[in-house]
Amino acid sequence: MERFDQDFAPPHDSDVDLDAFDPRPPDGIKKADCEAEIGELRQRINDLQDLLYANRGFAVLIVLQGMDTSGKDGTIKSVFRDVGPLGTTVHPFGVPSEEELAHDFLWRYHRRTPARGQLAIFNRSHYESVLVERVKAIVPRKVWKRRYDQINDFEKMLASEKTVILKFFLNISKDEQRKRLQARIDDPKKRWKFSAGDLDDRKLWGDYRQAYADAIGRCHIPDSPWYVVPADKKWYRDVVVARIVADRLGALDLSYPPASEALEGVVVV
Amino acid sequence: MERFDQDFAPPHDSDVDLDAFDPRPPDGIKKADCEAEIGELRQRINDLQDLLYANRGFAVLIVLQGMDTSGKDGTIKSVFRDVGPLGTTVHPFGVPSEEELAHDFLWRYHRRTPARGQLAIFNRSHYESVLVERVKAIVPRKVWKRRYDQINDFEKMLASEKTVILKFFLNISKDEQRKRLQARIDDPKKRWKFSAGDLDDRKLWGDYRQAYADAIGRCHIPDSPWYVVPADKKWYRDVVVARIVADRLGALDLSYPPASEALEGVVVV
Repeated sequence: MERFDQDFAPPHDSDVDLDAFDPRPPDGIKKADCEAEIGELRQRINDLQDLLYANRGFAVLIVLQGMDTSGKDGTIKSVFRDVGPLGTTVHPFGVPSEEELAHDFLWRYHRRTPARGQLAIFNRSHYESVLVERVKAIVPRKVWKRRYDQINDFEKMLASEKTVILKFFLNISKDEQRKRLQARIDDPKKRWKFSAGDLDDRKLWGDYRQAYADAIGRCHIPDSPWYVVPADKKWYRDVVVARIVADRLGALDLSYPPASEALEGVVVV
Repeated sequence: MERFDQDFAPPHDSDVDLDAFDPRPPDGIKKADCEAEIGELRQRINDLQDLLYANRGFAVLIVLQGMDTSGKDGTIKSVFRDVGPLGTTVHPFGVPSEEELAHDFLWRYHRRTPARGQLAIFNRSHYESVLVERVKAIVPRKVWKRRYDQINDFEKMLASEKTVILKFFLNISKDEQRKRLQARIDDPKKRWKFSAGDLDDRKLWGDYRQAYADAIGRCHIPDSPWYVVPADKKWYRDVVVARIVADRLGALDLSYPPASEALEGVVVV
């Protein structure tokens, strides 16, 4: 059987052309079908997360990256709607604290990697070190250039120690971002989400796209793949992420820990 | 000028023969001279640590490893006697907690790496992952074998982000260990330091020596050197460690942050 997730993963060891990935759903995909499917997928992810928690053999790290308005929060809300907080933690990464800035660039992320049995979702991640820090020249070129290898070393080490890493780039078009930013400005209930910095970042759209292409191309390793998710339609974005999460967790083929034989036939009185 | 510390550092990219390192002081070295010198070195280290704290440009990580009774605690007490806790922290690593065991092997160490401006002393360290865990077969061979490269990647990343790493192996002879263990058993005031496990480890002396030789040989990189310290005499051990710490911190050539010109001539009233 062809693996579904290959449709969204760039080939390994290649330059990545993000323009080759359509931000829209393929022709013929129907919203109603996706909405029916996501309900089943949520339940399946919940079951798999229970198993992960009981089994304790693996940790799962889910990285969500994307331009402003690409839907990182929305994806978490939808895909993990049925997964309770027991065993699952979302870590949003904003502007680093003074203490975090005084350490190496991986320090604040490594502290929050999941234990075996746990699923952690990084809403933004260590990739910001080669995205915003590169685009806005927060660190010199020679610093961000060496970080791709350092990130690969870090992720390979995590993988060797039983962390399953899934990285999603939520790929929206520039025009879709325009609509979403405008909606944030126009709708009083959404205005809290808008910051003037969003427009500054939008002016750097091309630079960010290039930084994403490099991050995805240089850090797309077999142990830790990237998936480029069509994100212009929320209903398709969510179903793509949910399918990949369910497929990858299912492929671990986890089982519940064996019951003690000594319990066989025991009657609780 | 010949660098003093080179006397104690194995050559890079070579197998290390620990038997080539004499655990005793060289002939002609006098205890009284060392005791005079250590006083000056402690003061110099204190001055350099103040500068490190004010400058905030570098972090310093000192790793202390050695067989039981090799004097890790004693070295810290002596070398850092004049350095207060402001800016300096000792992290002793014992048996990992359940939470630590559920993460990758570097997780509990990375959390405790120093911020820039800080000096951290690891009393035992991530090297236990290729020492006790190897010797006692706590992890399979294929796991500890890959860890040397993972440790090098980790330390290179730390170094690239302004952490100065100094690693000391306190090298005592098997006969000196016998005397020290016997003293712990015989002296009621020292008996609290003795545990039956020390004798089990002593039976594995040869295995531990081989594990140390491999750790030192495979993880002795220019960014993060090992020093093999003659440790049969405490007064010589301390002066060797103190000299290397003072030399390496001095070589950073740190300066106090420049005073604001706006303060020139200001009189506080």
